[in-house]
Amino acid sequence: MLIVKKFGGSSVANKERVLNVANKIAKDYKEGHQVVVVLSAQGDTTDELIKKAKEINPTPSKREMDMLLTTGEQQSVALMAMALETLGLPSISLNSFQVGIKTTSTYSNSRLKRIDTDRMLEEIERKNIVIVTGFQGINRYDDYTTLGRGGSDTTAVALAAALNADKCEIFTDVDGVYTADPRVVPNARKLDEITYDEMLELATLGAKVLHNRSVELAKKYNVDLVVRSSLSDAEGTVVKEECKMEKTLVSGVVSDKNTARIAVVGIKDEPGKAFQLFSILSKKNINVDIILQSIGRDGTKDITFTVAEDNVEEAVALIENKMSVITGQKIECDKKVSKISIVGSGMQTNAGVATKMFEALYDAGINIHMISTSEVKITVLIEDKYTKEAVNVIHEAFKLGEINK
Amino acid sequence: MLIVKKFGGSSVANKERVLNVANKIAKDYKEGHQVVVVLSAQGDTTDELIKKAKEINPTPSKREMDMLLTTGEQQSVALMAMALETLGLPSISLNSFQVGIKTTSTYSNSRLKRIDTDRMLEEIERKNIVIVTGFQGINRYDDYTTLGRGGSDTTAVALAAALNADKCEIFTDVDGVYTADPRVVPNARKLDEITYDEMLELATLGAKVLHNRSVELAKKYNVDLVVRSSLSDAEGTVVKEECKMEKTLVSGVVSDKNTARIAVVGIKDEPGKAFQLFSILSKKNINVDIILQSIGRDGTKDITFTVAEDNVEEAVALIENKMSVITGQKIECDKKVSKISIVGSGMQTNAGVATKMFEALYDAGINIHMISTSEVKITVLIEDKYTKEAVNVIHEAFKLGEINK
Repeated sequence: MLIVKKFGGSSVANKERVLNVANKIAKDYKEGHQVVVVLSAQGDTTDELIKKAKEINPTPSKREMDMLLTTGEQQSVALMAMALETLGLPSISLNSFQVGIKTTSTYSNSRLKRIDTDRMLEEIERKNIVIVTGFQGINRYDDYTTLGRGGSDTTAVALAAALNADKCEIFTDVDGVYTADPRVVPNARKLDEITYDEMLELATLGAKVLHNRSVELAKKYNVDLVVRSSLSDAEGTVVKEECKMEKTLVSGVVSDKNTARIAVVGIKDEPGKAFQLFSILSKKNINVDIILQSIGRDGTKDITFTVAEDNVEEAVALIENKMSVITGQKIECDKKVSKISIVGSGMQTNAGVATKMFEALYDAGINIHMISTSEVKITVLIEDKYTKEAVNVIHEAFKLGEINK
Repeated sequence: MLIVKKFGGSSVANKERVLNVANKIAKDYKEGHQVVVVLSAQGDTTDELIKKAKEINPTPSKREMDMLLTTGEQQSVALMAMALETLGLPSISLNSFQVGIKTTSTYSNSRLKRIDTDRMLEEIERKNIVIVTGFQGINRYDDYTTLGRGGSDTTAVALAAALNADKCEIFTDVDGVYTADPRVVPNARKLDEITYDEMLELATLGAKVLHNRSVELAKKYNVDLVVRSSLSDAEGTVVKEECKMEKTLVSGVVSDKNTARIAVVGIKDEPGKAFQLFSILSKKNINVDIILQSIGRDGTKDITFTVAEDNVEEAVALIENKMSVITGQKIECDKKVSKISIVGSGMQTNAGVATKMFEALYDAGINIHMISTSEVKITVLIEDKYTKEAVNVIHEAFKLGEINK
């Protein structure tokens, strides 16, 4: 079996952890598997390099920043190869030039374009454990680029796809995907399986287990992903196209406090107003989430939407600046809100899921401000002080803590 | 003018020094020169990386060690590019993959084979200051290799040769080549010029200004080398084929305490004995320096030679092991010796130089144990407690502290 294993920065933060990871790799190798490992930079290395750079130049060019940061992963892979040597195992570390990890030209946030497999296959053929730098690649100018947040997960999935690996294991500091955040819901349960689509919704909604791009890529190339802990031997959660068991009604419930509601009140009820409003925001790369438009009355309508809390001030300023075009009478804004979502691939064929969610909130006396739904998700906006309670009552209502639901 | 400027690790050890070097580079660029910069890893970076590696694996493979260490120079070049950005100057950092610095296969001590100039010339054409990682290259397996001690000097000279640069400036923490070590001889004088051959003798003899390999390379490709201080604007010393002024009788005097004398006594006076003796040592890469063979008497002869002090124990053990072949009766060994040498390209056409040196030592009551001469150098072995005095009396005898000698 060909296995791609990815370990994040905290999993290789120091000597002990490097050796711990080496032992995990050794186990698979000794069982006769072919192993390709993807590593991030150790612990705080990336942050330290950024700090060092900013002391010299507060706004360094992204090209040089990538040149600097890519050294972090190269150090990780070399050290891991040395750790494997102490276990008597043959291994070789490779950076993006050596593998041939080709990306788009953009620095600091590039996308993977192509991965050459020749060198990796050659080394696998030689019985080497292959250790590859995550998070980075080279563009058509032969310059280093980095893949942005969650980049190493994406590298791992892409290598698994390119090598046609049997599975891709992503090791993190949690032991899988849960029905809810265990810090919020004490009886949250680890899921054995979850579909790509569900995982995508969870990832977007802020369950910080896997980055969206890696899940999208896994779905596209049908890579069997496993999320598991680097600190225990627990089984983890498998992310795949179709789950073996019957489609889960609801897989999990997640919350996101980093959200704010903006309402533009008294807009003339004419065509094109929503377009004008949101084009102002999209031009500045401000993502709008839930959108709600009131029915026109007295020749005016209200448009309410949510943005990430960090973007509120900028969004409000941009809209105020164009109020004459949008024809709104005033802007209201509320940061004390929270998004609560349930995710489950079964809900599209099951009526009553939304009802059950709303009922649970009603029973707890929690008011719903806005609602948004997709094929595998229902999101509501509530006052943020109820976040923890809301997650708990919904988790309870769907009996997510119990194995047979 | 195309100038290659090399700065060592201590010259870029921290933020302030990086910016100081950036200003030196800026000065040349603003005067209209094309500038290529070669950098070592910052300060103690290399030592720290070695320490980190050895904590994980006391004897890591050289291949992985090179993979680890090469990150040090890559960080330096990226940070320097950022520093130049703050001065508003266009620059680009390049590592060995990007330049195409090709070396022999050996890890940790490779030799340069070929340097591609395409990318560098392209960047120079775009008016960029080009900043290149020293000390490293890639071999035919596309693996990083490092060049061993003094590697960055060698990179700088090789780039200057490949680019046909007008000069190659090596910046160090001293402001040039001196007639003697200024810490030993208070009135030692900085030389304006010195020939490659003289510099080679000085480098070999332990004047730690330039590494031998870089001087050999400069001689081979006739690169005008300048050794100067990164901390001052002093002119430095030019190393070239022929010095403008009349050939210097004696350019400088140097000492080397890292030397020991071994005598193999009572060897049968038969052909092949010297060969047998020294082949034992050369097989183990132990360099032998001065060799003296006594005239055969009573059917036996003595062979005396010097090796670096670090190699004494190994050398003695190797010889003892083969004493039956060598037919020696006993081995004597003395670590308390020191080599004193005078170097000067004029001495080959001037009689009396050796005499004057010996006279100076005789006047000071210093006994000479061994003598060795080359075209541009005379070396004597003395008791090491007289080292400082010997250097001073010789410096004085040749009036090296005076400008017109």
